[in-house]
Amino acid sequence: MDTVSLSGKELAAAVNADTKLRAGALGDAPARLALVVANDDPASAWYVNSLRKAAERLGIVCETVDLGADADVAAIRAELTARSADTAIDAIMVQTPLPSGVTLEQVSPAIAAAKDVDGVSPLSLGLLAAGLPGFAPATAQAVVEVLTHHEIPLSGRHVAVVGRSNVVGKPLAQLLLAQNATVTVCHSRTVDLPAVTAAADVVVAAVGRIGLVTGEHVREGAVVVDVGTNESADGGIVGDVDADSVRGKASALTPVPGGIGPVTTALLMRHVIEAAENRRSV
Amino acid sequence: MDTVSLSGKELAAAVNADTKLRAGALGDAPARLALVVANDDPASAWYVNSLRKAAERLGIVCETVDLGADADVAAIRAELTARSADTAIDAIMVQTPLPSGVTLEQVSPAIAAAKDVDGVSPLSLGLLAAGLPGFAPATAQAVVEVLTHHEIPLSGRHVAVVGRSNVVGKPLAQLLLAQNATVTVCHSRTVDLPAVTAAADVVVAAVGRIGLVTGEHVREGAVVVDVGTNESADGGIVGDVDADSVRGKASALTPVPGGIGPVTTALLMRHVIEAAENRRSV
Repeated sequence: MDTVSLSGKELAAAVNADTKLRAGALGDAPARLALVVANDDPASAWYVNSLRKAAERLGIVCETVDLGADADVAAIRAELTARSADTAIDAIMVQTPLPSGVTLEQVSPAIAAAKDVDGVSPLSLGLLAAGLPGFAPATAQAVVEVLTHHEIPLSGRHVAVVGRSNVVGKPLAQLLLAQNATVTVCHSRTVDLPAVTAAADVVVAAVGRIGLVTGEHVREGAVVVDVGTNESADGGIVGDVDADSVRGKASALTPVPGGIGPVTTALLMRHVIEAAENRRSV
Repeated sequence: MDTVSLSGKELAAAVNADTKLRAGALGDAPARLALVVANDDPASAWYVNSLRKAAERLGIVCETVDLGADADVAAIRAELTARSADTAIDAIMVQTPLPSGVTLEQVSPAIAAAKDVDGVSPLSLGLLAAGLPGFAPATAQAVVEVLTHHEIPLSGRHVAVVGRSNVVGKPLAQLLLAQNATVTVCHSRTVDLPAVTAAADVVVAAVGRIGLVTGEHVREGAVVVDVGTNESADGGIVGDVDADSVRGKASALTPVPGGIGPVTTALLMRHVIEAAENRRSV
């Protein structure tokens, strides 16, 4: 079977074109994103820089707040609380990794839901679960949007999500249920993962481990979505899916890079504009 | 195969005994629950009365606020907001059904999370998803507690939840993931429901339809949990599971009545005491 590559580049470009127009329409009061960083991780620095450039290209002002790799929970919460109250700021993101001993769950409640463009706070997660207006985590949303863009139906399909993180797996399950998919969430404690995922029409790998999903995990003709962005031995980016063993068996596969990644960034920036538009229309 | 009946009565009695002790320890400042009602439904009136009696037996003060079956979103939200701010009130529940055209999602955000003892607000749902302290919906929690009480393991087991409501199915999926179960959420749009549920070690029926789950949906030796509380033709209460066809095939089944129901009420009352204790220790 030929395995179609489900590129995210064209969708990302279309989203970005719309975002740029809407950013321009804000005129003299551009949308402002505060990006809160508390690490000295090179991969994070690379990602922050790519977000800054993406924002700049689209006409969004991006302020990076570097709290240093030694920041504690109180300092990060205080910064997020201050930015939530800051009328000059439309949108807030907190970058991972956080300092050792600090979890996202400890600091994310300090982000006001109206500015929480990556949907990480408990309130944002709950609004998503309840089907109320709010921002979904961009990566999870990108999975649904890439599949929809490529006209892969979700209603009534069985989707296996491998990974139960608060930023991807769990919110993705909510988004897929809202699309009327039957959803199975698998994880490190799942017994016989290949048997569980091979029962699904669509398999989403969202763990962050190279080679997690192989041909053995996928039934003939299934669609495979690779959310992983792992650093490979040669410094490149590689997903969670062993593409070589899946290719020829799956009907379609999202590439890494060029699949979920660019759509995630594009959706984040669209959320920033939506947050700015919402604040200006209040 | 003999099908064991997984009674909830003993667990409910144990929870209630603990709650009564803790309620007594509050002395002259008893825990106070506000029960907000906006319907003229006889089944709701019956349930409200049973909650009032349960509270009274345990030493919890229960105030019923009847807004009438014509109350609109604004009136219900205003009441919930007022009770959230009322320092004399420890806990708030809003009873369903709500008036025609009013959804739980429209009014539940007005319940402060600290008093939201049935875990219905978006913030409560998000705290649950994020693994942060908060109140889980009592019915969903009762499913996990009944299985745990009967020493039915969940870690690594495949659990199929039939129903994706915001009050049972979705929060139950979060609780089961926290127990390291592999979780499949099924619903009205699931294709070939019997095949999906028959792949599971545990099947939870939480839709509210008589006869939804039959022997065909259950594999030999599986555990079946019946969350349904439907009115039968003769005025009694009957679950979602066709017990006659499941018996002899399932290894265990929760009865209706006497299974999830009494544990749900007991957990609600335990939550009221926890809310009161939390407020007094602040």
